[in-house]
Amino acid sequence: MAMNLSGILPPMITPFKQNGDMDYEAFVFNMEKWNQTGLSGYVVLGSNSETAFLNEEEKLKLVELAVKHSGCRTIMAGTGMETPRDTIELTNKAAALGADCALLLTPCYYNTAMTSAALYEYFAEVADKCKIPILLYNVTKFTKVNISPDLFGKLAKHPNIVGAKDSNGDVPQFASYMRAIAGEDFKIFVGTAAALYPALTLGAVGGILALANCCPVESVEVYDEFKEGNLNTALEIYQRMFPINTAVTATYGIAGLKHACSLLGFQGGYVRRPLLELNEKDKEAIKAILEKAGIRGVARA
Amino acid sequence: MAMNLSGILPPMITPFKQNGDMDYEAFVFNMEKWNQTGLSGYVVLGSNSETAFLNEEEKLKLVELAVKHSGCRTIMAGTGMETPRDTIELTNKAAALGADCALLLTPCYYNTAMTSAALYEYFAEVADKCKIPILLYNVTKFTKVNISPDLFGKLAKHPNIVGAKDSNGDVPQFASYMRAIAGEDFKIFVGTAAALYPALTLGAVGGILALANCCPVESVEVYDEFKEGNLNTALEIYQRMFPINTAVTATYGIAGLKHACSLLGFQGGYVRRPLLELNEKDKEAIKAILEKAGIRGVARA
Amino acid sequence: MAMNLSGILPPMITPFKQNGDMDYEAFVFNMEKWNQTGLSGYVVLGSNSETAFLNEEEKLKLVELAVKHSGCRTIMAGTGMETPRDTIELTNKAAALGADCALLLTPCYYNTAMTSAALYEYFAEVADKCKIPILLYNVTKFTKVNISPDLFGKLAKHPNIVGAKDSNGDVPQFASYMRAIAGEDFKIFVGTAAALYPALTLGAVGGILALANCCPVESVEVYDEFKEGNLNTALEIYQRMFPINTAVTATYGIAGLKHACSLLGFQGGYVRRPLLELNEKDKEAIKAILEKAGIRGVARA
Amino acid sequence: MAMNLSGILPPMITPFKQNGDMDYEAFVFNMEKWNQTGLSGYVVLGSNSETAFLNEEEKLKLVELAVKHSGCRTIMAGTGMETPRDTIELTNKAAALGADCALLLTPCYYNTAMTSAALYEYFAEVADKCKIPILLYNVTKFTKVNISPDLFGKLAKHPNIVGAKDSNGDVPQFASYMRAIAGEDFKIFVGTAAALYPALTLGAVGGILALANCCPVESVEVYDEFKEGNLNTALEIYQRMFPINTAVTATYGIAGLKHACSLLGFQGGYVRRPLLELNEKDKEAIKAILEKAGIRGVARA
Repeated sequence: MAMNLSGILPPMITPFKQNGDMDYEAFVFNMEKWNQTGLSGYVVLGSNSETAFLNEEEKLKLVELAVKHSGCRTIMAGTGMETPRDTIELTNKAAALGADCALLLTPCYYNTAMTSAALYEYFAEVADKCKIPILLYNVTKFTKVNISPDLFGKLAKHPNIVGAKDSNGDVPQFASYMRAIAGEDFKIFVGTAAALYPALTLGAVGGILALANCCPVESVEVYDEFKEGNLNTALEIYQRMFPINTAVTATYGIAGLKHACSLLGFQGGYVRRPLLELNEKDKEAIKAILEKAGIRGVARA
Repeated sequence: MAMNLSGILPPMITPFKQNGDMDYEAFVFNMEKWNQTGLSGYVVLGSNSETAFLNEEEKLKLVELAVKHSGCRTIMAGTGMETPRDTIELTNKAAALGADCALLLTPCYYNTAMTSAALYEYFAEVADKCKIPILLYNVTKFTKVNISPDLFGKLAKHPNIVGAKDSNGDVPQFASYMRAIAGEDFKIFVGTAAALYPALTLGAVGGILALANCCPVESVEVYDEFKEGNLNTALEIYQRMFPINTAVTATYGIAGLKHACSLLGFQGGYVRRPLLELNEKDKEAIKAILEKAGIRGVARA
Repeated sequence: MAMNLSGILPPMITPFKQNGDMDYEAFVFNMEKWNQTGLSGYVVLGSNSETAFLNEEEKLKLVELAVKHSGCRTIMAGTGMETPRDTIELTNKAAALGADCALLLTPCYYNTAMTSAALYEYFAEVADKCKIPILLYNVTKFTKVNISPDLFGKLAKHPNIVGAKDSNGDVPQFASYMRAIAGEDFKIFVGTAAALYPALTLGAVGGILALANCCPVESVEVYDEFKEGNLNTALEIYQRMFPINTAVTATYGIAGLKHACSLLGFQGGYVRRPLLELNEKDKEAIKAILEKAGIRGVARA
Repeated sequence: MAMNLSGILPPMITPFKQNGDMDYEAFVFNMEKWNQTGLSGYVVLGSNSETAFLNEEEKLKLVELAVKHSGCRTIMAGTGMETPRDTIELTNKAAALGADCALLLTPCYYNTAMTSAALYEYFAEVADKCKIPILLYNVTKFTKVNISPDLFGKLAKHPNIVGAKDSNGDVPQFASYMRAIAGEDFKIFVGTAAALYPALTLGAVGGILALANCCPVESVEVYDEFKEGNLNTALEIYQRMFPINTAVTATYGIAGLKHACSLLGFQGGYVRRPLLELNEKDKEAIKAILEKAGIRGVARA
């Protein structure tokens, strides 16, 4: 089946056991459940997957499982590393396991050295040598690096760079990305539900959303209603989901996202240290936010 | 004529003579020219008016002239000062001169002390004692103060606080403002052309835009086409105007805005020190940006 | 008596009555009390004086009183305004009232437009036309403008710019200021007690310290012990005062500073709106911090 | 020989060949040269070692070589990883190879989740399970995480946490660290030459300085002169080195540091991608800065 670069994809959470070991069964359980929804694909090894905490063996096992349980949906693998050599190696291993494309974070440790020139060289070399198409991943809150609209336009011309995920929520910059790639066959996903509706109005092809882990049905509805021209409905659901998104990202982070997943029928599992679990008060707050928004579980979808 | 809180308004530039004195004739010239367009009103004493550089006598003279030359359009006066006592006094003087409403900046010198509690007390006291309706003005790039969505919701309940201008370009926060005021009769203008189209899709009543000084026709077109349901046309004009807006705000500032006005048939005049005039190279850059975007002057509107 | 540009000066608080009116008697009371200490001079109309909240009449009255009650100490007036024309006018009025020199804030509303070129033009014009010597005032936390070491060096060559107050607490930059002015007759005061001791080790001529309002004796002791070569004693007092300084600046702001003054025998008075008074819990916290540090009141000095 | 936690240590650069492979011979060459100076030890795998670009095998080889060529000086290994499990494993491998202690970066990818509670749990667990003493490494410019003075004080009580390197250059916070650890046997190194002299005046035990790679003699002189009470001499050398430090850190980064090393008799080698080499103009600038400062090479020391 051809790679589908549109619609809603979750950057899949990685459930851990209480001792911090991988819980691959829970991972597969979640995929089987998401397969009952209108999600168009999956991101394995995204920021919300605690990828920074995984070793290579764990990463490749997740890619393998994601491909196996994808239900023929697109598998996008977050195989970006700090160096081109490591990124190329890991991406091609993921490709060999069946990943459709790679979503590559900007290198970030030496953030001020990641000038447009350095990023251009990095992405061009990686794109040349990776055996699957790549997408740029811009997420300044984690990386402190920002891909400029000019660089977007330049990289969009590379035949093996097919799209991007922009998680910044900076909608005016998103508009500038769209101008920069006008005329190219280049797909931009919005990377945060906080900007989903406005990004769609500007031409986003879809969303790669933490929120889609716990609320896949409603996330897909925003996209579908928008595509069908039901703007008011799309806007209403977007606004209704907004407080949940704030809770499972900015306020409570990955531990909050996992707890929301568990409350809604998924297996969130534990976070890996140094992340901390939520306290009871925070768990109650998330429950209340979910109830107020009236989330339908997948079973009822 | 009733106050119109919708559509496009320019925060009017204040032309100065070369020696820094006020050029009231140029100010009136511009208003007469803008009166030939579909602008719905005017902001006098906005940030782009170099209000921080004006003394009280100059401010009140501008209000007087704005009212006189409004062509029956709404006059919104930027009469915010650092203290409630000074804001109330200046606002009521502007009211006596005929201003329809006041657009009030958050106090900002002691920016970290401007908590939600302090801002609530400030705006509530001012709203109680001003003789015309007031609008909140959120412009963090100048003030380093941000009005939270919660505070927006709370202040929106005050009978004499009728709306707001949000210039931050933070579209997800704009969406949160809209949720916070749902059900209230409260009008939110977007305060930067960089966010105009997405803000309209979220429910903005219009825009108060630096860009509307030099490109009033196109600014109004974005609004009108959107209102008529011609979303693609509105989006296209918004994107076409975007580089001009960047030039006359972020890149070249007020001197750039005034130069663009002069190139397009208005009388931009000089900036007042400590602002500096543009050099020739920057003036050429602005000219090129305007030409590329294909701006129609007012005469041809 | 010659102007003394060294030692410790308080940027004097401005006491208000409960209704927000000026309390000039309290202002004079405080000066008489400070006159019993080793303070070398006074700053009237500093940031901690709530200068942003004062009208011109109030400002000039404070200058007049400061000169009258200076006890022959140096009076530095904070007469910076947003434009050179207003700064020159106000400074020369203060000069006519007897102020020895002026401490001039960078213009700041259009903070990104305050490039080194704009600031150079501003300060050079002002220095040319002011009838008393001027000092640069760098306080980025309020202004969001920073004077670069290069600009420091350039302005230090102007015959009527005799020094500066740097409140940033950026000690490496302070070291760079010292390099930039090497060889010039130019005095740099540190503007926060948090950096007092390290700044003295780098060549600061003294400190203009919020802390010197409430703890003048100890503030002067740090300076005097340092000057006498008793480095360990100076360091010990600096460290002991540090938590008080944090409380009366970063944590509790001007309301906190005024409350500390009142607890230590001065007349702090009320803050002017939009600032808020402290709640009882915060007042208790300040009291505890003062007690722990073992502050001696002036009477016991 | 007992571990020496004082004096000047370079976070050793890692020379690469032009193709990006490790150049272990150059690494050893540099150590042999540094061994002719008064450096008190070495940091292997610091930020300036491009550690973020190294795989485990490369890291351990560097530790092995560092121990072998230490000239009996202290070897501090930068073995911090994002998770406690990975940090403990790598640190204990480095310990087995002979590293004296470990300098552990704060986890940082999920920077906003790295609260004091999370960092406390992380460091306490790691300290419990590492077989060599550990030092905290605070470097907010790379990590966007800051260790608070309170947390410093709390962690200083752990018997296996023996010190810290603070690279922030925030001297007032450094003073607060010193207050927080008063009474503990806990050694704080300053991590940037820009703050070396003021940090020494506040009680730093020494410096771990990028600058010490290229200018070990002068770096050690600042320390030695300070210790001998020659404060003016120490200050003079600190100020003379300051522009070099700015060049090899903030302005030109690791490529600049390596070029300076090469100019001064070391083997800087190439940087690894995604870092870029300097252009010729930048190389000339560094040469000029070195010449102006009058650096003595090691041979002449």
